[in-house]
Amino acid sequence: MKPYTIGVDVGGTNIKLGLVDRSGAIAARAFLDTKSFYGSKKKLIDVIIGAVRDLIEEKRLASKDILGIGLGLPGPIDSKRGIVNFLPNIPGWKNVPLKSIVQKKLHIPTVVDNDVNLITLGEWKFGAGKNYKNLMCMTLGTGVGGGLILNGALYRGEGFVAGELGHMPLNEKGPDCNCGGSACFEYYVGNGYLLKKAAKIFKNKNIQLSDVFFLAKQGNARAIEFWEEAATHIGNALVGVVNLLNLRLIVIGGGVSNNYQFLGKTINAVIRRRAMKVQAKMVKIVRAKLGNDAGIMGARVLVKESIRER
Amino acid sequence: MKPYTIGVDVGGTNIKLGLVDRSGAIAARAFLDTKSFYGSKKKLIDVIIGAVRDLIEEKRLASKDILGIGLGLPGPIDSKRGIVNFLPNIPGWKNVPLKSIVQKKLHIPTVVDNDVNLITLGEWKFGAGKNYKNLMCMTLGTGVGGGLILNGALYRGEGFVAGELGHMPLNEKGPDCNCGGSACFEYYVGNGYLLKKAAKIFKNKNIQLSDVFFLAKQGNARAIEFWEEAATHIGNALVGVVNLLNLRLIVIGGGVSNNYQFLGKTINAVIRRRAMKVQAKMVKIVRAKLGNDAGIMGARVLVKESIRER
Repeated sequence: MKPYTIGVDVGGTNIKLGLVDRSGAIAARAFLDTKSFYGSKKKLIDVIIGAVRDLIEEKRLASKDILGIGLGLPGPIDSKRGIVNFLPNIPGWKNVPLKSIVQKKLHIPTVVDNDVNLITLGEWKFGAGKNYKNLMCMTLGTGVGGGLILNGALYRGEGFVAGELGHMPLNEKGPDCNCGGSACFEYYVGNGYLLKKAAKIFKNKNIQLSDVFFLAKQGNARAIEFWEEAATHIGNALVGVVNLLNLRLIVIGGGVSNNYQFLGKTINAVIRRRAMKVQAKMVKIVRAKLGNDAGIMGARVLVKESIRER
Repeated sequence: MKPYTIGVDVGGTNIKLGLVDRSGAIAARAFLDTKSFYGSKKKLIDVIIGAVRDLIEEKRLASKDILGIGLGLPGPIDSKRGIVNFLPNIPGWKNVPLKSIVQKKLHIPTVVDNDVNLITLGEWKFGAGKNYKNLMCMTLGTGVGGGLILNGALYRGEGFVAGELGHMPLNEKGPDCNCGGSACFEYYVGNGYLLKKAAKIFKNKNIQLSDVFFLAKQGNARAIEFWEEAATHIGNALVGVVNLLNLRLIVIGGGVSNNYQFLGKTINAVIRRRAMKVQAKMVKIVRAKLGNDAGIMGARVLVKESIRER
């Protein structure tokens, strides 16, 4: 029989939890506000553990019914040992043995990984990437992340920090990035930059990206051009990845991907124009399918891969 | 007992053959001029087969003593089926079933792969990359190639064309490249561009890169700057790879790498400055060790991996 699993997707702003039942459906959910627990690592862990307990009780289950818990966090994670190395956007986390902390409290086997890795696993097994062997999942939001499935397995890199697509340089010279580098892809398409650019173009300090989307939908030429420019940057970044990795699929997720109808055509056009012919012909660009559930479903993949039947 | 293997490294200008003995040493060699056989695919194959026969006879061996032949060719190769898809720099090759042609003539099991993949396998098992799990081998010459060992195995990509490092764009806008793209890394550091640049700087149409190397060695400031500029481009290209793939090692080979003493420092400095801290700290940049023998030794790796004892 298929197992119950629990997924916890910890983001910089909120935490999404889900209990996945034996049919593979998310049977119970919880949301938490991450920012309330900034500065207190212990509180954040306690509140996650409390929320997991609530999910189990809500469904009248016991710990022993749960095959495992998978936690995704936004930062470099030693998934082998279950240690959070650090979280760039959540203060106070350094070399936290989260796996053993959670296991001790809940008596449920636990696995920990980078959030984008979990999203990638979710899209690969349950979403847009089913049956693909070589794909990248790109998340477009405040940050730009990337997860790699290569030769049919998640590629984590030597120190569990592979996939930093957002910090591939787009140009040899360019503006400084938070990461210490310069001209990084994330600088050109991260929410922060896009919002600033939109505020300037539309002379409105409070404009949201969703506003620019609706303007584009209504045929506003400047809004359409705004998304085409973003898509050109995205395409330029993907050309290098496509030529280097000869992927079959690139899955685009994250908030900005909601504007895919104004991004997709240009992204594809840039790749057809600039990437090598064999590689360009072979790669398909698609939107993510699982939305906010990708991390929870990816946790299920990781749990099932890592934990034997209890 | 360890087997005899034969490696054939087909380049755009010459062909290197080597018979590797049971101790792992190259016991016999042959060189052929590729250009003499441009335009006749059949002649080129016949002359390779003849040279392989000569190597076997020279050492008084028989076909049955050879575990396998490994051929590396400069282009996309379907290594699974042993088919040369095409060779960008050698006319007349399209979907050539080279593996079965050679096997039929020589009655020796044969494997075929991309030349840079063989070089990478050679450096990985016998050269600078011994005991590493995640590395890239970059070849700097007329073209710029890349071979990837990821999770302890050669990564070929969906259609056997992964590793096209030379065609990762360095900038969003830039000069057109032969590949159909623009601002490709190869454009900035391929021999053709470097020679043109050197001719201009030193006002000498016939200058060779080795001349610029000797000038640098003698302390010529413009020559030193010439290599530093090349190294900056190389570093800029590697920053993206390092952030995306979190490699432990990058092996630099090919003709241009002979000037490593004027390249290495700047390449490393650019990576330390621009790449993400965890990734930059983890990656080591080294020169290739096997020189022109890398392909022959890589053929041995591929043969031993693919062919069971006869």
